[in-house]
Amino acid sequence: IAKEVAKLLEMKAELGADEGKHKFVLKTPKGTRDFGPKEMAIRERAFRAIIACFKRHGAEVIDTPVFELKETLTGKYGEDSKLIYDLKDQGGELLSLRYDLTVPFARYLAMNKITNIKRYHIAKVYRRDNPAMTRGRYREFYQCDFDIAGQFDPMIPDAECLKIVHEILSDLQLGDFVIKVNDRRILDGMFAVCGVPDSKFRTICSSVDKLDKVPWEEVRSEMVGEKGLSPEAADHIGEYVQLHGGLDLIERLLRDPKLSQNKLAREGLGDMKLLFEYLRLFGITGKISFDLSLARGLDYYTGVIFEAVLLQQDPEHGEEPLSVGSVAGGGRYDGLVGMFDPKGRKVPCVGVSIGIERIFSILEQRLEAAEEKIRTTETQVLVASAQKKLLEERLKLISELWDAGIKAEILYKKNPKLLNQLQYCEDTGIPLVAIVGEQELKDGVVKLRIVATREEVNVRRESLVEEIRIRTSQC
Amino acid sequence: IAKEVAKLLEMKAELGADEGKHKFVLKTPKGTRDFGPKEMAIRERAFRAIIACFKRHGAEVIDTPVFELKETLTGKYGEDSKLIYDLKDQGGELLSLRYDLTVPFARYLAMNKITNIKRYHIAKVYRRDNPAMTRGRYREFYQCDFDIAGQFDPMIPDAECLKIVHEILSDLQLGDFVIKVNDRRILDGMFAVCGVPDSKFRTICSSVDKLDKVPWEEVRSEMVGEKGLSPEAADHIGEYVQLHGGLDLIERLLRDPKLSQNKLAREGLGDMKLLFEYLRLFGITGKISFDLSLARGLDYYTGVIFEAVLLQQDPEHGEEPLSVGSVAGGGRYDGLVGMFDPKGRKVPCVGVSIGIERIFSILEQRLEAAEEKIRTTETQVLVASAQKKLLEERLKLISELWDAGIKAEILYKKNPKLLNQLQYCEDTGIPLVAIVGEQELKDGVVKLRIVATREEVNVRRESLVEEIRIRTSQC
Repeated sequence: IAKEVAKLLEMKAELGADEGKHKFVLKTPKGTRDFGPKEMAIRERAFRAIIACFKRHGAEVIDTPVFELKETLTGKYGEDSKLIYDLKDQGGELLSLRYDLTVPFARYLAMNKITNIKRYHIAKVYRRDNPAMTRGRYREFYQCDFDIAGQFDPMIPDAECLKIVHEILSDLQLGDFVIKVNDRRILDGMFAVCGVPDSKFRTICSSVDKLDKVPWEEVRSEMVGEKGLSPEAADHIGEYVQLHGGLDLIERLLRDPKLSQNKLAREGLGDMKLLFEYLRLFGITGKISFDLSLARGLDYYTGVIFEAVLLQQDPEHGEEPLSVGSVAGGGRYDGLVGMFDPKGRKVPCVGVSIGIERIFSILEQRLEAAEEKIRTTETQVLVASAQKKLLEERLKLISELWDAGIKAEILYKKNPKLLNQLQYCEDTGIPLVAIVGEQELKDGVVKLRIVATREEVNVRRESLVEEIRIRTSQC
Repeated sequence: IAKEVAKLLEMKAELGADEGKHKFVLKTPKGTRDFGPKEMAIRERAFRAIIACFKRHGAEVIDTPVFELKETLTGKYGEDSKLIYDLKDQGGELLSLRYDLTVPFARYLAMNKITNIKRYHIAKVYRRDNPAMTRGRYREFYQCDFDIAGQFDPMIPDAECLKIVHEILSDLQLGDFVIKVNDRRILDGMFAVCGVPDSKFRTICSSVDKLDKVPWEEVRSEMVGEKGLSPEAADHIGEYVQLHGGLDLIERLLRDPKLSQNKLAREGLGDMKLLFEYLRLFGITGKISFDLSLARGLDYYTGVIFEAVLLQQDPEHGEEPLSVGSVAGGGRYDGLVGMFDPKGRKVPCVGVSIGIERIFSILEQRLEAAEEKIRTTETQVLVASAQKKLLEERLKLISELWDAGIKAEILYKKNPKLLNQLQYCEDTGIPLVAIVGEQELKDGVVKLRIVATREEVNVRRESLVEEIRIRTSQC
């Protein structure tokens, strides 16, 4: 087979190459984009806030390869598996690009027999989804993951994950948000008491997961039509999934005659109550909503699940604010590491993933609206000359500055005009110009020009580094 | 064809899946590795030094997708093209993982019609090479690239690239090194005067490139045997490629009766002389060697090329120090952007790529030898309790600390033993413990323990944040 495939692929490649000559396309692959210097400045600002939070919570950092053995990803994502990018079989192992950072993390734990770690991981993941780039949905995108692995007392690490989401979203000032919380055990208990057969739990869960995008009627008809659920069971689910609230709702459901009879639901609701207690101590219950419609698509969750959504800035008076999109999600996955361990040893885990692309879009739009000029370099000084034939002197001076740790540039011209050199500083935001001229060289000084004020001072050459440091210390 | 391929691939996948069940392998793909917290600490240390240098030279930063359209990479790498990773054809565009950061950079410039930029890019690249992981050769590895694009006066940006390599290698204290420099025009001129036909320039250049790994005799027999070069031409090349030196050698070759007759060689040698003049002003000629055996494998270079190699630490008396491997390389590629521009408009570029994996290996070995303990978190304080039933108080206190920007942890236990909490600080290097107890709560204080000295002081709760900041300000 391999030979046949190779032959056919070769024939195809030849055809492809021929086509290529006729219409060469200058673009990035579908669903991906470049980050230019401006976008990078915004991206790094967001990363700084996120990393600061992860470090504040004592996390270590790890990294894993961008691809995994195909079999490592198999059977972890349920219906989403079709979105995985595979690599071409070029001989050797079958590989796939990572779909998230959670499965590689679980593989890492099992492989290194780690039973206890708190780590973050910021890296790109890949999904062959239909991109909607204006809304921040890409095929290549960053995830910023924080996870706590280990056997601990219930809900303490879970509460910390929610605290982290709350800190990051507050810190980035993205506007109002709500963190929806649910528990897979409550969902499964609910499915059981509604009469969903065990074998349909996961697929019905996938249907419920669509409720943030499509109305209940559509989800119901998928359950009944495509997935063969009885209309009564669907309607019963429909009653539960419109419920959301706080501690009051948890307590109401704990008294619910049907749900309270189900062991899983009871466990989930008990832990949910404990979680709310811890969140109260953290002072963040105001932004938390226990929401029975939250399901999360991925197969591997086993307990608490959550998702943070940004809310519309100015809702109409009296109406509930609309959600404008999910920016973080996560939950507990106690079984995933065990799937990799040869002896099935489990390592309980809970974690959160911050989806940075939508956050970028918002930060970008805001900066554009504010017409704030972002500097894309940190250069402190341009080494310039007022006369010709001073390239050697410029090179000598800039070399001294670099060696002293000063961020410095020159124009790559033998005899640049002073005006062009000053204009370059205006354009790029360089605050100082160190000007060498024949007179200055004779006097052992450098003329330092402050771009903003056009002030010029002669500085002795041996004091120049110190003078530049002082004058740019706030940069 | 596509249908047939799909069918065959499907059959194959089924077979593959069956095999998978029998022997599940827990590993990262061949030639790749995870970075645990310790390795990440080392990696980030190296990145910090490299990024600081790039910023000191006024570079902006960009990022591009990890894969490109397959045709973007086609015809750019010569004989190395066979090492490119392709993605599986899952419908839609044909994609390949990037092989370096230079071709994506050129694509980015052409696509955005940028004629003038100085940027760095630090990212992973992919090569289906034979891995030699103990020597730092991987299939997935980082490149740290700095490039200057634009029409400038000769050799000024080129000299800056070499200065950057010199700064980074000095800064990282990797031991003695030499930066070999040559020029593709000198090589091509040399090939011409040695009687190599034009059509064989690139392939003979690839042979010369192997001289750092295999002896001349082997390279010669490849030229004559495999590549059909006349033995006379090969021997003539052999005489040139053993030459290396400084300004003296450049001037000798400028007077070489044959080479000086060749226009390309004359241009290359003239620019090489200018380059050495600028490097003298930068004070770095001591580490630079003009070396006629340096060829660089990639097709796209058009002018200056260079490669930095680390030297054996303690060479035998009187012997030349042995090279222990290349850690940086680069050169001028004035034609690459034009290959992407629909109208063939050229943007001259020169750049350097720091290969970080070998540097990691060296830093890792050195740290291991020094038995230095590296902290993998930045946690300033552990919030602990001496008695039972104080989880709520711990959660309240740590929440206050987090909100004040203090890096703090707790153990995720309801009633942890004090000894275990102190041990955790010893193990992870946390310098302070904030202990809440019933008496302290009554008195409105927190007991702050300094782990290193075992000293304990009572601090008023409202002064705790300030006290922690002062005591960890050197961290």
